[in-house]
Amino acid sequence: MIKKISHIAVVVPQLEDAMGFWVEALGLDLSHVEHVEDQGVDVAFLPAGESDIELLEPIVADSGVARYLGKHGPGMHHICFEVDDIKETLARLKSKNVPLINEEPTFGTGGKKIAFIHPKGTGGVLVELYELTPDEPERRSERLEAMRRRLRGGRRVYTAGIRAFVSGLRQMGNGNGNE
Amino acid sequence: MIKKISHIAVVVPQLEDAMGFWVEALGLDLSHVEHVEDQGVDVAFLPAGESDIELLEPIVADSGVARYLGKHGPGMHHICFEVDDIKETLARLKSKNVPLINEEPTFGTGGKKIAFIHPKGTGGVLVELYELTPDEPERRSERLEAMRRRLRGGRRVYTAGIRAFVSGLRQMGNGNGNE
Repeated sequence: MIKKISHIAVVVPQLEDAMGFWVEALGLDLSHVEHVEDQGVDVAFLPAGESDIELLEPIVADSGVARYLGKHGPGMHHICFEVDDIKETLARLKSKNVPLINEEPTFGTGGKKIAFIHPKGTGGVLVELYELTPDEPERRSERLEAMRRRLRGGRRVYTAGIRAFVSGLRQMGNGNGNE
Repeated sequence: MIKKISHIAVVVPQLEDAMGFWVEALGLDLSHVEHVEDQGVDVAFLPAGESDIELLEPIVADSGVARYLGKHGPGMHHICFEVDDIKETLARLKSKNVPLINEEPTFGTGGKKIAFIHPKGTGGVLVELYELTPDEPERRSERLEAMRRRLRGGRRVYTAGIRAFVSGLRQMGNGNGNE
């Protein structure tokens, strides 16, 4: 069963510059920044209701996201759905002959179970599936607490210096990328 | 303030065929189909948590969505955010010099207030804003009731004959497109 849209991923050339639209003009908040080593990207998370906008900046030249940016330019990259049972969902997709990038769940940051469906099976959309693991809410809350400790100046400093703030967060994120 | 992701719009060549992935394989439900006269599209709504996947089929050859499909092929088209005050959001975007397709809110189906932000101001993403109007929940509930009356055979018939079902819904939708 599909529970919700987990996130919409958007490829950007530069996270700090992207804050100008998504945070300063549109008014979303930035919750945190992560470095995802095996995809060669830095990711900024901007909650919107129960979902996130995930901004992806490729930081490794030959990564999939870097190639995507080179070929298509910046813009929407994939939709991720949270499902209650990723194995069951993959089994149903296989039974309908939908081509999968990951036949079995793989593991994202923080031990998330994820799998990608190939765009040729969805009508041109890269779709990610994601199952929340039992220890993830705790990990998330730890990350949020670490971010709060950084936010000594509160919301005013946060919005005034958002680009510098993202730089700080991503440096912190890069240090913790392989935890 | 951004309340949530209202919907993610995906352009498809053919609504009935798209049900094969989104409903039959992925497992989303189809809530309703609407004909949007002024955009030249039929739209199928598939709820996912508090948001919808909106499948758009262009049915007028020279519409914006038809041109998009011809140029880019099928895939993600835009993100729509529900905001609490669309005028205030547009004013903030203007103050930050973000280029807008609609400087003032325009009206979508069912009297919705909507406005589009130009992709050149967002980093390549077509972004729609949407403010719920007071009479919209009632209009939605009427539409849902009309659909329920059509669903005489219940869920089993609905999933077994999903493509025929969509054909029926869109014929009904087309008849009511300008209400």
